[in-house]
Amino acid sequence: MSLPLLVTGTIGIDTILTPGGRADGVLGGSVSFAAVAALLFADRVDAVSIIGEDFPAHYEAALEAKGVCMKGVERKKGPSFAWTGEYFDNMNKRRTVCANDAVMLEWNVHVPEPLRNHPVLVCCCMVPAQQLKCMEQCPDAALVLSDSMDKWLRRQPELLDAVISRSHITMMNEDEAKEYAQASTVMEAGEFLLSKGAAYAVVKQGEYGATLLGRDAGGNLRIFRCPAYPLKTLVDPTGAGDTFLGALAGYLSTLPPGLPPFEEVKRGIVYGTVAASFTCESFSADALLSMTKETFRRRLEEYAEMCRLPDIRLSSASAC
Amino acid sequence: MSLPLLVTGTIGIDTILTPGGRADGVLGGSVSFAAVAALLFADRVDAVSIIGEDFPAHYEAALEAKGVCMKGVERKKGPSFAWTGEYFDNMNKRRTVCANDAVMLEWNVHVPEPLRNHPVLVCCCMVPAQQLKCMEQCPDAALVLSDSMDKWLRRQPELLDAVISRSHITMMNEDEAKEYAQASTVMEAGEFLLSKGAAYAVVKQGEYGATLLGRDAGGNLRIFRCPAYPLKTLVDPTGAGDTFLGALAGYLSTLPPGLPPFEEVKRGIVYGTVAASFTCESFSADALLSMTKETFRRRLEEYAEMCRLPDIRLSSASAC
Repeated sequence: MSLPLLVTGTIGIDTILTPGGRADGVLGGSVSFAAVAALLFADRVDAVSIIGEDFPAHYEAALEAKGVCMKGVERKKGPSFAWTGEYFDNMNKRRTVCANDAVMLEWNVHVPEPLRNHPVLVCCCMVPAQQLKCMEQCPDAALVLSDSMDKWLRRQPELLDAVISRSHITMMNEDEAKEYAQASTVMEAGEFLLSKGAAYAVVKQGEYGATLLGRDAGGNLRIFRCPAYPLKTLVDPTGAGDTFLGALAGYLSTLPPGLPPFEEVKRGIVYGTVAASFTCESFSADALLSMTKETFRRRLEEYAEMCRLPDIRLSSASAC
Repeated sequence: MSLPLLVTGTIGIDTILTPGGRADGVLGGSVSFAAVAALLFADRVDAVSIIGEDFPAHYEAALEAKGVCMKGVERKKGPSFAWTGEYFDNMNKRRTVCANDAVMLEWNVHVPEPLRNHPVLVCCCMVPAQQLKCMEQCPDAALVLSDSMDKWLRRQPELLDAVISRSHITMMNEDEAKEYAQASTVMEAGEFLLSKGAAYAVVKQGEYGATLLGRDAGGNLRIFRCPAYPLKTLVDPTGAGDTFLGALAGYLSTLPPGLPPFEEVKRGIVYGTVAASFTCESFSADALLSMTKETFRRRLEEYAEMCRLPDIRLSSASAC
């Protein structure tokens, strides 16, 4: 039995261009990836978001078939959130070609009453004011996770500060965290996120993995470095960060309520890392949707073998 | 007791510009870093290189004081190898401002007779033709390690191929390996290096660590992902890759002669990673030269704690 988990953010339609191909009008949005990934572990995941009247019924059906409860998703006249992105440089950089986000910007967040006392709240990347509204409407959440992106740290840094201060676990991409912190290293950026009030900060490093920072009871910094699963072919990294967040939150929802210990967050980050690798293997959420618990488990074992540190036997080395 | 180890490559004078400062006329060259790092483990390290008449006596004394045997280093009239480099973008990119490398380009490599039967040969980054000459003059080397850089893969790809085919362990920076392999992922680039004939390929990923690839007896790919030690302040990464190579080779020289098993190469890579973090903490080799076995051991333990994977307990997670 896991704790009920609420995932809020965007659900939309993506068009993705990469050096190797393109996908038009495919399922996208932070909630789509995070909710499916959370269901690797969680028994119940409720999505809270907004879609337009053009949202394809088969995408909604695909999410529901995976177990995502869509009752908290509002329907509105007009178009759904739509994002077109282009990747360059071996997929390390991307730009937004265009974004039709009127439906998201105008959304007056309303969490349905029956979902307001969910103990785990996942605020995926969206407008910080809406993340805050969601947090206010779910005052009983004993564990709040949040993600954000460069756009909001440039436009609404104070609101982003507030989101982070109300999060137990917050995450940001490396470049964005460095910009936010005006820092040149991951360590400085991560400590800055912690200084904003989160108990744990995760700096997402794309194909290089993630770095988790927290503090022990004495205030000492604790760090976990988690490499990514190395794919031979990278098709489309869109949604990898959302998948990572969702799987982490899903795992943590299986633990007793409240702030998880560092070791459990580490474990969740390993699960998130491996889940995200599936997302990168296809356009949209195709590979994530077809991932099974068995394919996930097998890759996890392979990953653990790749990253297992050897015993450090300094005493046996001649000179040390 | 370790096996005698020969380190060949450049010894020179660097001028380094970074966003945070500069250092003029400081000790540089691949051998300077690699030889000192190797002495963390090895009892005997012989340097084979060439310097000009202007090479500061106190730098030579500093290397000798650490235990580097300089008898194999030729002296020539004219200036020493001198490199001026500038770092940008949070140290992720650099350019060569100027290089006075006449002494290196004209060097007719001659390994002194008493050093020719050393069982471990480390060919640090330099002209591939000279790396090959060194390999030919040391036919008894049961373990050959090599490193290279973009300049040589553009100018002398066939000679670089030959260097790699004669190496047991070869390494290259990620961007360079991708260019060499015309690959978009680390995995493709690493497999390409293996296809050239090395038993182990190491793709160096700078602040993100390194990825080791090899094959088991059945030809199946084996992979080890090793994150870097996360520094809060990065002063100057010059020489980090050489330090990494040197410490790896030094550790392997403590093992029985011949090709080391995968698990031992992993261990050497962890040692190399931690040693390289010291190099990044100062301009030139200052921090590396003042590192002791005790400071190294302490950071190694800290590193192992940061990178230790949690137990993967999928059976206890509710849904898996």
